[in-house]
Amino acid sequence: MRILGIDPGFGRVGFGIIEQASGNDWKAVAFGCIETSPKNKFVDRLLEVRNELVALIKKYRPARVAVEELFFFKNVKTAIEVGQARGVILLTAVESGLPVDEFTPLQVKQSMTGYGRAEKGQMQKIVATILGLKEKIKSDDAADALAVALTAAQCLWMSRLLEQKK
Amino acid sequence: MRILGIDPGFGRVGFGIIEQASGNDWKAVAFGCIETSPKNKFVDRLLEVRNELVALIKKYRPARVAVEELFFFKNVKTAIEVGQARGVILLTAVESGLPVDEFTPLQVKQSMTGYGRAEKGQMQKIVATILGLKEKIKSDDAADALAVALTAAQCLWMSRLLEQKK
Repeated sequence: MRILGIDPGFGRVGFGIIEQASGNDWKAVAFGCIETSPKNKFVDRLLEVRNELVALIKKYRPARVAVEELFFFKNVKTAIEVGQARGVILLTAVESGLPVDEFTPLQVKQSMTGYGRAEKGQMQKIVATILGLKEKIKSDDAADALAVALTAAQCLWMSRLLEQKK
Repeated sequence: MRILGIDPGFGRVGFGIIEQASGNDWKAVAFGCIETSPKNKFVDRLLEVRNELVALIKKYRPARVAVEELFFFKNVKTAIEVGQARGVILLTAVESGLPVDEFTPLQVKQSMTGYGRAEKGQMQKIVATILGLKEKIKSDDAADALAVALTAAQCLWMSRLLEQKK
């Protein structure tokens, strides 16, 4: 089973696809960052995000999608802009018939580190370690997206364990 | 030529389609409000908005779409939620190949009343008068959507006048 994790945005959208290797052991299939040009009109940037995501879903065929929730913003303008991009991301997932899980940044950090205070650099190292990646994850956004996917994976795993115990 | 105006939201999305009768004289073709159920999951409400809009565009075949900008919110949470719905609305318009015009609430009010301080009730009356509607427009959201469409119509008309003068 594959999970697509997404760190939402309109200028940079992190994505990370993980695959169940065995049990609760997951490996990275692909990760990176969709970037849209600030030279383009905002609506066209939304369309770029949409088209890139549709292509990713078609190529990697994830079974579900995990999207980070928006949390903190310096101003309402940015919140609305990123919100609009996140709407496009949610729509694309749900239109593809995929179940969508949503996690707050705190939930993701707690899931990855056991406590909610990981710095960016730490998260990238932890995610790389969990996934057994030899190379450093260069993009913050890609690392966040992989972390969201791993959080969804962990939730699934835990809920299956609980079901087995019943 | 037809213009589809939209007052964005996720619980209630106002829409209004106007058609050029002659010169700068416009009539209402259809207007109303897409409502989504709070019982449904947020992502499914986004999908409902999407599907209803696609159906409206297919049925009425507007030449362009005008969407009100988001402006004031009591809290960031609401801004993000409505932002997500607006992203879906913008995407649907641009994917349909339609040019998108965006106007702030102030621009719409100024366009309708000459000054930016119209109350809700006033706007509904003015919009109904401009469009020659005999019945009252019951929905605030539909009246706002018609006002946005009329603002786009006025902008088009003014820019054509300017071009002719050149």
